[in-house]
Amino acid sequence: MINPTPAPQTPYKALLFDIFGTVVDWRQSLAHELSVYFGERDINRDWEQFALDWRSLYQPAMERVRSGDRGYVILDVLHEENLRELLPKYELEHLSDDEIHHLTRAWHRLVPWVDTLPGLYRMKRKYILGTLSNGNIALMVNMARHSALPWDAILGSEPTQGYKPQPEVYLKSVEMLGLTPPECVMVAAHNNDLAAAEALGFATAFVKRANEYGPNQTTDQQADSAWTFVCDSMIELADELGV
Amino acid sequence: MINPTPAPQTPYKALLFDIFGTVVDWRQSLAHELSVYFGERDINRDWEQFALDWRSLYQPAMERVRSGDRGYVILDVLHEENLRELLPKYELEHLSDDEIHHLTRAWHRLVPWVDTLPGLYRMKRKYILGTLSNGNIALMVNMARHSALPWDAILGSEPTQGYKPQPEVYLKSVEMLGLTPPECVMVAAHNNDLAAAEALGFATAFVKRANEYGPNQTTDQQADSAWTFVCDSMIELADELGV
Repeated sequence: MINPTPAPQTPYKALLFDIFGTVVDWRQSLAHELSVYFGERDINRDWEQFALDWRSLYQPAMERVRSGDRGYVILDVLHEENLRELLPKYELEHLSDDEIHHLTRAWHRLVPWVDTLPGLYRMKRKYILGTLSNGNIALMVNMARHSALPWDAILGSEPTQGYKPQPEVYLKSVEMLGLTPPECVMVAAHNNDLAAAEALGFATAFVKRANEYGPNQTTDQQADSAWTFVCDSMIELADELGV
Repeated sequence: MINPTPAPQTPYKALLFDIFGTVVDWRQSLAHELSVYFGERDINRDWEQFALDWRSLYQPAMERVRSGDRGYVILDVLHEENLRELLPKYELEHLSDDEIHHLTRAWHRLVPWVDTLPGLYRMKRKYILGTLSNGNIALMVNMARHSALPWDAILGSEPTQGYKPQPEVYLKSVEMLGLTPPECVMVAAHNNDLAAAEALGFATAFVKRANEYGPNQTTDQQADSAWTFVCDSMIELADELGV
């Protein structure tokens, strides 16, 4: 009889995931959906650049909430406002409210990176899998159903009424699982997200997505710190977690 | 070629489930776990009655929160307080804090009725499945992982900071899905839960669990009103929803 290599024991009970860029490829998913939608209407633009421009309005919009300039609103609202702001630049200001609503919901239909599902389904066997994203609950639920993401819990922004990197978003999410930060691994492709989590006592996993913003991306090309895990894919993270 | 019978079209997008008694059999699950745990310690009691007594403290404990006598605390806290209150009656006041914590978590390990999983997995193909329970998030997540319950979202008490039948618990849960009450079906074995949901505009499904409290149960033996759906099992509900 062969003795299998024993799986490594870890102190972790839950893996908490950043979503946009870490789990799903927002840039190419949006560019594809926009090119199909407008292609059918004989409208042609640089949809990759459109996706990048839309995303570039994300942090400033959340910052107005984080700073207290406005009360908490869910990310769907910010995505729609940002889209409306962007449309004139692409000479698309004639779109109807229904079209704007439909296109805003493209964020609910983002597609995972190729390694995401193989890794997540392995990790789910042993660990609680939660979202710890700035996306709202409906966005996360609809994306999960669209793309077969096997979350046990939707945590992060909306249940905690804040936006990362506000500490309460991380801490209240962990509390909702009845766990402590050292029992949880924050998984993200962004060093600043991991730094915020580490400062609160989380373990951390960097998953490299060096092409998230396209070939000209200069940020997050590698781990900037000695994170608990540093991986090139969710499959490699599953390997390191022994699942 | 055979023409299949077309599936009925419904206006619903989400099915929201009461859990204790509707999805899982708390009475027999608790009685079984207690009898195994204490049997190994040569302690014998009437564990079915113990489970019923524990559950009887549930509504009064929540009422103190609903009435404003105390601030919101999660159900795990109430379950533990109620257990401590009950132990002397069964001459078990010597239990350690660790044992009390472990036994309180028996609520995280409740087992579904036999028809639950076959029904839920069929319903999940077409509908968002959410919990709309007074159980807290960790309880719902751990139970789901223990018993393979395929929830898309954990809603209800903790995310909305209230206890059913407070209207906000139902209304905020629906809002978190980006839906309206008429797009949601409240599924419960308890007429009062359905009445609260119907008053807010939900569709309703009564699933009969005439033995939830054992052979002497007198309440909820049948639908007390013309609910949208009246079923004997989750399989029958799946049939009626055409999935």
